[in-house]
Parts: sequence; structure tokens; C-alpha cells
Amino acid sequence: MAAADGPADGFGHRFADPALLRQALSHRSVGHANNERLEFLGDSLVGAIIAELLCDRFPKANEGQLTRLRASLVRRESLAEQARQLDFGDHLRLGPGELKSGGFRRESILADAFEALVGAIYLDAGWDACRDWLRRRFEPLLDGVDPRHVADAKSRLQEWAQGRNRPLPEYVLIDNAGLAHSQSFQIECRLDDGQVSAGQAGTRKKAEQQAALEMLKLLGLES
Amino acid sequence: MAAADGPADGFGHRFADPALLRQALSHRSVGHANNERLEFLGDSLVGAIIAELLCDRFPKANEGQLTRLRASLVRRESLAEQARQLDFGDHLRLGPGELKSGGFRRESILADAFEALVGAIYLDAGWDACRDWLRRRFEPLLDGVDPRHVADAKSRLQEWAQGRNRPLPEYVLIDNAGLAHSQSFQIECRLDDGQVSAGQAGTRKKAEQQAALEMLKLLGLES
Repeated sequence: MAAADGPADGFGHRFADPALLRQALSHRSVGHANNERLEFLGDSLVGAIIAELLCDRFPKANEGQLTRLRASLVRRESLAEQARQLDFGDHLRLGPGELKSGGFRRESILADAFEALVGAIYLDAGWDACRDWLRRRFEPLLDGVDPRHVADAKSRLQEWAQGRNRPLPEYVLIDNAGLAHSQSFQIECRLDDGQVSAGQAGTRKKAEQQAALEMLKLLGLES
Repeated sequence: MAAADGPADGFGHRFADPALLRQALSHRSVGHANNERLEFLGDSLVGAIIAELLCDRFPKANEGQLTRLRASLVRRESLAEQARQLDFGDHLRLGPGELKSGGFRRESILADAFEALVGAIYLDAGWDACRDWLRRRFEPLLDGVDPRHVADAKSRLQEWAQGRNRPLPEYVLIDNAGLAHSQSFQIECRLDDGQVSAGQAGTRKKAEQQAALEMLKLLGLES
């Protein structure tokens, strides 16, 4: 079998329909039959399967802890690392331009293809098979993890500023709209160098976290 | 059965474990055994199940169209509407403060409880039962929908500005960091009144959409 068709064992799942595997490994640069729809499906499946895994493993963790832990597990870099462990790079199908510029090493292409593979396994064999496959890959990452110690966005941003001897970020309430039973808080996070991000949520606390997360993205510390 | 325990039929799913139903309907204001963890799980299950439903129904839609369509289906207002159709308000368990302030009508409380119910059905009966239950509720919403006509965030923001005779939003590239194989574009969306939002993504186009979406949130047009 040619490398472009993916490995015979489908990365630990034996595909009944090998066309699905081939599609999962096809970047949009190859044309129409690419992995973008599978990625859309797989992305959400990863979210749900990891959510359940975390609920099982951490029966006392609260929603905020579970949310932060999942964000750390499914961020682009983590999924790209999963793809690298499976030697995805050797099996990706890329258009000529992406091939030339080393697209098989690009984090976003690897992470997207990993999500697409999850979508393909689901369509090929159903929820239980897909869930088992993904859990096997993520369970080892949870050994020794304490959900109480996964930092939230505000804490991470604060640590970042402190580590650079910079003033702490400021959080400013811009607007508080809505009626008593559906309030909406708009918060700006401001750095001393003038960078600004915004967050909006139903509570002030959540809006501040949202703004901090956006700032981490602006700083390239979160994808 | 008291109203606080939820209806005998569990909103169309007969619970083997009625404690799950009770928990799904318990807002955090009632104390420890509340629905926040179920909501965390249910939120991601809703995302995955609706993703698959849309892939099935719209075999030719691209990823961007599917993403926009899902966002319109699972936004807070839509889930709260689902909860209202199930007469959730009569069965929610709220603490005294929330009861007094009419929390059973609050959009976020209704939407969160709906997601928690989805999580509870999954834990009670598994993926297939949960998926069937949710699909039955969302399938009618897709009749007549054309995924090509669901507006993206930039288009919606543009329409909003035009409808108010205001200048069009400006999109400004703030930073373009990273190496060739993992670029990151940072875009600011600016309104004429000085409001600013930010977006960050691996392509300029996606970063602009992200910034437009954040602006829609700032304007209270998106949750």
C-alpha cells in the first residue's frame, strides 16, 4: 500500500472503509475530497470524549477545573503531538505548495488531521470504538494530573506578566447590559504596553477569564 | 411526584436512574449536588451530536457553513428555547435567591439545564439513546434551512452597521507572528465609535471572522 493511503492498520483502528482514512489524511490543498468536514465532526467528538474521560477520572473536580483541563489537553499543540506520535507526517496527503513548504510539519495541519481521523473512526465504527481509541491515547496523559492545579487564564496571564517584571494586567468593566435575569458583562483586559483584549459573559468572573484567554491568544500563548 | 423532581417521563427519556434527572435540573444555587458537571459533559455532547446531524443533512456543505449553522443552533437563546418547549421552568430546582429573582426564566439557567439534561441522558442510557433524543428535537429546525445562507460573523456585523447607517467595521492586522509553518494572525476589528475586538487564528480570514464574532458578542448580538 502506498504511504499516501495511510498505514495498513489505520493508526490502531482497522478501517472497514479505507476511503475514510484516506480522506482524513487529505489536506484541503489536495482538492475537493479533503478532511475539512471530518475535522469539523472530529473536533466536537474529541471535545465530548475527553469531557467524559475527565468526568470519570476526576469525580470531584468542578466545571471550571474540568474546562481548563480539557483546554490544556485538546489545544492545537497537544493534538499535533498526538499526530506526531502516530507518524502522521509520513501519511498526510498535501498539495504541491504545502509539500514544498513543509506542511507535513505544520502544527495546525497535523492537529486538524488528527481530529479528522477521530471523525473518520466514528463514521467507520461508531461511538464506542471511537471513544475507546481516543481514551487509550489520552488516558496516559492524565497520570499525576491534579485538576486543582491547572491554572486558569487569569492566573496564567498574571504569571506571564510577573515573569517579565511587568505590571499586572488590568480588568476594566466596559459595559453591563441586559435585564436582571439575563445580564451580560463586557470586560477589557489591558496590558501596560497598550494591548487590549475583550471578554463577554453572563458573569463578571467569566468575562474576565474570557478576556484573559483572548489576551493569551494575542500573545501567542494559547491557540 | 413533586414538580421539583421533574416530570415522570424525564422529558421524553425514561430515566433508569432518576437521580441523574434530578441533578440535571438542580441549579448551582441549590448547593453541592448541582448540574454544573453534567452541563460540562452535555455541552460537548450537544456539539458532537449536532455536528453529525448537520453532516448527515448537508452532505455538500463545507466546514465553514457547518460551523456557522451549528453556532446558530446551539447558541444560548436556542437552547433556552428548547428548555422552554419542555416546560423546564416548572421543574428547575433553584436556591431561594434565584427563585425570588425569577431565575427559572433566565436564559443562561435554562440553556445550562438543557445541556445538563443531555449529559444526564447520556450517562443514563448511552450515546445512541442520547443522540436519538437530541436529534428528534433539532431535526425539525433544519427543514428549509440552506447552509449556504447562514451568514458568517463578518457579514452579520456588516449588516448590523449598514442597518444603522454607520461606517463599515475596519479590520486591522496587528501582528503576524510565527514561522512559515505555523503562522498566527492577530486582527483587530474597529467600529467608528472606538469599540475594538480582537481575533487570532492561523489564517487572516479566520482571524477576521474571530474578531467579528467577538465584536458581535460585545454588541450583545451573540453569546
